[in-house]
Amino acid sequence: MTSIRIALVGVGKIARDQHVPAIAGQEGVELVAACSRNATLEGVASFTDFDEMLRAMPEIDAVSLCTPPTARLDYALKAFAAGKHVILEKPPAATLAEIEPLVRLAAEAKRTLFATWHSRFADAVAPARDWLANARIERATVTWKEDVRHWHPGQDWIWEPGGLGVFDPGINALSIVTAILPRPIHLKAADLEFPSNRATPIAARLSFADLAGVPVEAEFDWRQTGPQTWDVDVVADKGHLKISKGGAVLSIDGRTVVEGRDNEYPGIYRRFAELARDNRSDVDLTPLTLVADAFMLGRRASVEAFV
Amino acid sequence: MTSIRIALVGVGKIARDQHVPAIAGQEGVELVAACSRNATLEGVASFTDFDEMLRAMPEIDAVSLCTPPTARLDYALKAFAAGKHVILEKPPAATLAEIEPLVRLAAEAKRTLFATWHSRFADAVAPARDWLANARIERATVTWKEDVRHWHPGQDWIWEPGGLGVFDPGINALSIVTAILPRPIHLKAADLEFPSNRATPIAARLSFADLAGVPVEAEFDWRQTGPQTWDVDVVADKGHLKISKGGAVLSIDGRTVVEGRDNEYPGIYRRFAELARDNRSDVDLTPLTLVADAFMLGRRASVEAFV
Repeated sequence: MTSIRIALVGVGKIARDQHVPAIAGQEGVELVAACSRNATLEGVASFTDFDEMLRAMPEIDAVSLCTPPTARLDYALKAFAAGKHVILEKPPAATLAEIEPLVRLAAEAKRTLFATWHSRFADAVAPARDWLANARIERATVTWKEDVRHWHPGQDWIWEPGGLGVFDPGINALSIVTAILPRPIHLKAADLEFPSNRATPIAARLSFADLAGVPVEAEFDWRQTGPQTWDVDVVADKGHLKISKGGAVLSIDGRTVVEGRDNEYPGIYRRFAELARDNRSDVDLTPLTLVADAFMLGRRASVEAFV
Repeated sequence: MTSIRIALVGVGKIARDQHVPAIAGQEGVELVAACSRNATLEGVASFTDFDEMLRAMPEIDAVSLCTPPTARLDYALKAFAAGKHVILEKPPAATLAEIEPLVRLAAEAKRTLFATWHSRFADAVAPARDWLANARIERATVTWKEDVRHWHPGQDWIWEPGGLGVFDPGINALSIVTAILPRPIHLKAADLEFPSNRATPIAARLSFADLAGVPVEAEFDWRQTGPQTWDVDVVADKGHLKISKGGAVLSIDGRTVVEGRDNEYPGIYRRFAELARDNRSDVDLTPLTLVADAFMLGRRASVEAFV
């Protein structure tokens, strides 16, 4: 079987650090082109213009959109019009409303639309979901605290409207929580802290409940220096489940039962290859919906400027 | 055929001004009870406790939830558990995420969930949609400017998180626009003005586009004294369509073609009676999705305190 030929669009940190090696290591997919206003990738054809790339290389089967989310809709529309599959880095779009038409266009074009949530492919997630499926859950706590200066150096777009601020990492936590808990959750209250000189929040405290009333508390903070924390704790009748290191490690009652590697992006492209084989789509908007709900329902506070 | 027996939950201004007369004037539905912490309705059984009402009057067929949106989910869950239909005043909920489980529960209970958008029942809306169906649209403009002090006297909840602020009337405009335009729209940019002492915006400027790139500009303002403006203007190849008076009046190229009465709430209960006959649901989240997108993507500015 021939490989699916992929073009990466938006050659930034996430494309170089994750997408390029993940595609290189995954059977069934092959990187053939890159499109970026100001960056190139060694070893593949590089373009500065998306339309020009599609004209020059009709053999491209799929585009993987790694640009900031506000730029993606036009690319996705053009890609489906040209009969390509579309992979969306998280968050899938700048707004919820633009996704549903894309799902319909993908179906009409008989192509795959894959809204990826990389954290859901972390090694602890599937076993955690299975362990919780028959548990009586009492509460869950999400602690997602990292140093924005370390992880997003120079990425000004995360502070601009649509950049989501601390929800850019926080949405990874929400993608895990919504994958492992057996019932849907909804927001009850939220407090958002906006630096006085920025358009997106640097910290958020979120109180969710599931349909049975089980509380799920989340704390996101981008001001964490020193040790970084990406944990999900679930207290249930059968024990205490803990996901740490962003989904790589799973422990039950203090005993490590999964100690994974950084397998998230290979998982994305493995799943994509399966979807594209049958032109199926996989679009779960739940994590972005919860973020939009937090912006809509959240109480805003202005905090120290971020410089 | 017997009438569907309805209980109103949340006896505030909208319930008294609109729901009570609309139910009284509509065949097929009948008001039998009211539930409110601190208000009663003459002529029907009044309760202060929702559970007590359901126990005392098992003959209730449907609950119409007119409370502020943050209070509705628990009532809806209990109503479906008791085999009742559920009608939701707009906006249907405080968050998007809580609606999808309700749709599923309604289907499982074989009952109707009706998320109402009263402005869609205004007399100009259906003819406007029909006129635009085969038009080549160039642009649309929404102007929704009213005096919050006149329309929401003492309603503090609209200024609290979840109250939506100027989007409480603005969502009516969005419910019309999304009903009459032939293609879905999504937000490109938004500016939101928050009074320095309030948690929700008093004004908003929104730039949408439809999938063909047609611009849709909206301006919501709650500081309008004097004449009030609830207009939608659409410029198309075949002429200029104007909806005014919140949907009651339709004119084409300056000529009035529909001059309706205030028919919105009777339309809601006529439609509900049809839906409930077959236990069908009608839940379109598009207007609330666009509002959530505006909170997520919007740039915030702090303006003069509202007192």
